[in-house]
Amino acid sequence: MTEPLPGPQGAPLDVAGLQRRLARFAAARDWQQFHTPKNLVAALSVEASELVEIFQWLTPEQSARVMDDPDTAHRVRDEVADVLAYLLQLCEVLGVDALAALDAKIDRNEHRFPAP
Amino acid sequence: MTEPLPGPQGAPLDVAGLQRRLARFAAARDWQQFHTPKNLVAALSVEASELVEIFQWLTPEQSARVMDDPDTAHRVRDEVADVLAYLLQLCEVLGVDALAALDAKIDRNEHRFPAP
Amino acid sequence: MTEPLPGPQGAPLDVAGLQRRLARFAAARDWQQFHTPKNLVAALSVEASELVEIFQWLTPEQSARVMDDPDTAHRVRDEVADVLAYLLQLCEVLGVDALAALDAKIDRNEHRFPAP
Amino acid sequence: MTEPLPGPQGAPLDVAGLQRRLARFAAARDWQQFHTPKNLVAALSVEASELVEIFQWLTPEQSARVMDDPDTAHRVRDEVADVLAYLLQLCEVLGVDALAALDAKIDRNEHRFPAP
Repeated sequence: MTEPLPGPQGAPLDVAGLQRRLARFAAARDWQQFHTPKNLVAALSVEASELVEIFQWLTPEQSARVMDDPDTAHRVRDEVADVLAYLLQLCEVLGVDALAALDAKIDRNEHRFPAP
Repeated sequence: MTEPLPGPQGAPLDVAGLQRRLARFAAARDWQQFHTPKNLVAALSVEASELVEIFQWLTPEQSARVMDDPDTAHRVRDEVADVLAYLLQLCEVLGVDALAALDAKIDRNEHRFPAP
Repeated sequence: MTEPLPGPQGAPLDVAGLQRRLARFAAARDWQQFHTPKNLVAALSVEASELVEIFQWLTPEQSARVMDDPDTAHRVRDEVADVLAYLLQLCEVLGVDALAALDAKIDRNEHRFPAP
Repeated sequence: MTEPLPGPQGAPLDVAGLQRRLARFAAARDWQQFHTPKNLVAALSVEASELVEIFQWLTPEQSARVMDDPDTAHRVRDEVADVLAYLLQLCEVLGVDALAALDAKIDRNEHRFPAP
């Protein structure tokens, strides 16, 4: 595997580093009071819907070409970032390891849906 | 920083490795035909709502204690995994680097919402 | 216009009558305590996503034929009912007249998007 | 029961009348081509999330007072209208009677959750 890219202040660009950066960002603005798990899942679902909004009237074929337009591509990356941000903030307040959860889920799915 | 934990077959437990594992999983089952960006964002929003469903009738205080119950904790981790899975599959088909997108977004938010 | 069909106990099958029936249903079970606007909009969005789930992997053409299968048709009607139920319960606790809100919105849209 | 209020052009302000008005609105703009069931449920879920967005950081108590602020009250009515608009357009293309579906669902719920 390649090394994680360095982020600001040389912090590695990985999930744990971004999760800490988000936690510091919220703490510096006293926003933690709003970050109940209930509020964070609502915000996560709102951001997921903002992604859906980009695609809602597109045909499947048009949806495959959204990154061809620079403005739409920027909007997609922005909403992907928002979804990931709220997911990691949720994991932070709940003490969930998102990568371990996904790894375990793929294990279960490999049993549930055996490859042909 | 700690080393990434080894995943199955010794692959590192990081976003890039999980994204590749998801891509192989879909390819082995011939599910890629369903994985248009439009369908993946729909699936992402459905999984985000399954997280919301866990919290929808809880008070803010109850929502902060969801991990105390082992069954609910398992359900939360399972839905977190599903959200992350569809987010990474979306990034795979669109060629989006989720970590770089989030890093750039936090940079923009630091300018937009200066810390006091 | 046709007369509204009679509902249970001869009550007319219209939005106002169904809204009252839902209010009585919740009151009889002491569920009003859970029906904050915040919780009701979360529940509404969860039910909307359960509708999305039915369609998420379908092609546009397949989606146009969902009512051909009796089980899927039942599921669609069931989720439509759930969305409408939470929308009307939200309107009840907020004092919003859903039909008047929609009528006013169509008026605004006729100005915003003039017909060619 | 009170008479339905007259809408524009004296049409009754009821679900069937609004559903027809929405169908004429879409037909006049040649938007029916976009109104596959799959697209309409996506749009419905996006509008439901726009309602959630209004409430996402509010406490339960604050959420109960959203209509006290005229701007927020307008926004709530606007989003309620959008949710109802897409729900009725979905019902139009699928041939679902939303009021009958809800009436039948309340019947089923009265058996499923007997009042104490």
